[in-house]
Amino acid sequence: MDINTDKYKNITRNLEREMINLNPIQRGGILPTESKKIIYEYWDGYSVCDYCSGRLDQIETPPINEFLEDMSKFLGMDITRPTHGARESKYAVMNSICKEGDYVVLDGNAHYTSYVALERAKLNYEKTDIEEYPTFRVIPESYAEKIDMLEDSKKNIGLILLTHVDGNYGNVADVEKVGKIAKSKGYPFLLNCAYSAGRMPIDGKKLNVDFIAASGHKSMAASGPCGLLSINKKYENEVLETSKVNVLKELQMLGCTSRGIPILSLMASFEHLIERVKKWDLELEKTRKVVNELEPLGFKQIGEKPRNHDIIRFETPILDEIAEKDKRRGFFFYEELKKRGIGGIRRGVTKEFKMSVYGLTNTQVDYVINSMKSIINELR
Amino acid sequence: MDINTDKYKNITRNLEREMINLNPIQRGGILPTESKKIIYEYWDGYSVCDYCSGRLDQIETPPINEFLEDMSKFLGMDITRPTHGARESKYAVMNSICKEGDYVVLDGNAHYTSYVALERAKLNYEKTDIEEYPTFRVIPESYAEKIDMLEDSKKNIGLILLTHVDGNYGNVADVEKVGKIAKSKGYPFLLNCAYSAGRMPIDGKKLNVDFIAASGHKSMAASGPCGLLSINKKYENEVLETSKVNVLKELQMLGCTSRGIPILSLMASFEHLIERVKKWDLELEKTRKVVNELEPLGFKQIGEKPRNHDIIRFETPILDEIAEKDKRRGFFFYEELKKRGIGGIRRGVTKEFKMSVYGLTNTQVDYVINSMKSIINELR
Repeated sequence: MDINTDKYKNITRNLEREMINLNPIQRGGILPTESKKIIYEYWDGYSVCDYCSGRLDQIETPPINEFLEDMSKFLGMDITRPTHGARESKYAVMNSICKEGDYVVLDGNAHYTSYVALERAKLNYEKTDIEEYPTFRVIPESYAEKIDMLEDSKKNIGLILLTHVDGNYGNVADVEKVGKIAKSKGYPFLLNCAYSAGRMPIDGKKLNVDFIAASGHKSMAASGPCGLLSINKKYENEVLETSKVNVLKELQMLGCTSRGIPILSLMASFEHLIERVKKWDLELEKTRKVVNELEPLGFKQIGEKPRNHDIIRFETPILDEIAEKDKRRGFFFYEELKKRGIGGIRRGVTKEFKMSVYGLTNTQVDYVINSMKSIINELR
Repeated sequence: MDINTDKYKNITRNLEREMINLNPIQRGGILPTESKKIIYEYWDGYSVCDYCSGRLDQIETPPINEFLEDMSKFLGMDITRPTHGARESKYAVMNSICKEGDYVVLDGNAHYTSYVALERAKLNYEKTDIEEYPTFRVIPESYAEKIDMLEDSKKNIGLILLTHVDGNYGNVADVEKVGKIAKSKGYPFLLNCAYSAGRMPIDGKKLNVDFIAASGHKSMAASGPCGLLSINKKYENEVLETSKVNVLKELQMLGCTSRGIPILSLMASFEHLIERVKKWDLELEKTRKVVNELEPLGFKQIGEKPRNHDIIRFETPILDEIAEKDKRRGFFFYEELKKRGIGGIRRGVTKEFKMSVYGLTNTQVDYVINSMKSIINELR
């Protein structure tokens, strides 16, 4: 067997240790110290299962069962289960409450994982309208229209899905309006909170949602892959149906899901999460400062204004201009940022890019702003 | 919000640090030092995705793409994908190649996760016969009978599933015979290698299997949850079908699966795995020694003899006898082992228990044997 394993030795990752990482999919998943400590204890294979009597969500040592109850309180929901991530949470709901061929009505900003989940569950979809350039906001009323249209053509609707915060523009959708429509029409309502739960306060009960799909690695300061599915007890029997052969085991969880360190890292991060969502306003302040300072440079912020989430999408014609005359072409921005210890902006982009300063200190935020300013001013 | 997070602080796990852990589900998942080192680098949320261009299995930095190709060689298969574990691998196969209502023909020793996977995929099953007490071996010929029976009654068979090594008795099934039956009848054949791949040598091509479901946390020295699905290229299009909406994303993987440290721990353990499967004979020697030394004590090994796998199941009437007169009742054995720094045997068991000395040094094995001897001899 000809296998050279040298390449798997001493693999390092400098980005997070040595640089400020502006990648929006990464900023919410950075571990606090207390979570790193717990990883030393639980890194071996099936380590969480030492004192298991058959169900991951019922394990008392470590206190996974209490954690899930506390998480239900944190999210304003009834019942919570660990999953491998938000996509796996969405699929579990779709595969249990929808029938083959049913329609999922979802927002025009839905994440690709909502589509792969529904396609895997052999479902159809109807996409709602969003506002045009440059805001791209979800139009809640479009849900009512699409639902009526599907009902008129005798299509069966299985689920209403809304992306709480989309990953393209960082728009915060009007959950209450969509929830009201779903409720008045009598359909189950799933909120994809991959970019919201763990960053900003969420109260599922108040928002009238039936399911919350949350992501540990994206927004809950947890090691990937890890997520949560929180449900309204109304749907307990359907979503948490147990096996006929092994009556303890839940089918949609395939028995057990997050059987390793990710769930432990999420537990250890819980206090950090509770504290940080209280400071969401301060995060928005930092984000808005970035927009205000960088727009005069020739950047244009796309998506709703002012920012209600830390994801910032900039159109950057000025980078395009510079790339035309710089011998590094489109790579100059990446290279110049790298020199200054800043990473996480896609290599080679000049038309537009996404960034986030979530969780950075004010000093770091100022450093990022000033670095970008100096790059543009020097090279323009 | 009334949440007391004190219980999530300073969670420790003494079992693995301070004790010899005999739990068979844990011995194959213990990390070598090189894997612990990599965890420091990748513990943050979406850390493996720094240089991703859309597909987890194609990431070059860290070299996940090369790793999966090397894994295919290691397992003697064509194509490999990361998954969250063996159960998730099995479900991906069932959900893609079977139609609702199809029958899965599976061995009488199949793991519970094979059932939850097929139930989740809305399939039926037919269980093959196994030998009677005390060997409980899978009877390969029973597959031919069950297949004929289903065919005669016009049932559609979607998959033949065999548990390579079952978790109850640690019997090693005759894969070649079952594979020959599956092939001659023209049905796809999945081998559940949760307890074999990463412990003992496996050559999928030679064994005529179409799918291998492997477990990182159970037998591949990886942090949970993590696994692999290896497939015969004949089934590539079906199992790895991509999304119509996002043509890059594979449906059964929900786009990406093991997006975090578990896959990195598996990569870092790869050299360790390659080396340790070569020493499988030495592991069997240790296991057989345990059986030979402990049976005269009043233990009876259940399952095939001699042992061809490290899982040992003992019937222990002698423990039952002692429990009747010991004031600690059934807990004396657990307590006495604990005193001696040995853990992983279920608390309170007296009728029978399972253990494994996989990966322990000869000195540790002798210590375990002598500890059990002294407990029985002192208390009987």
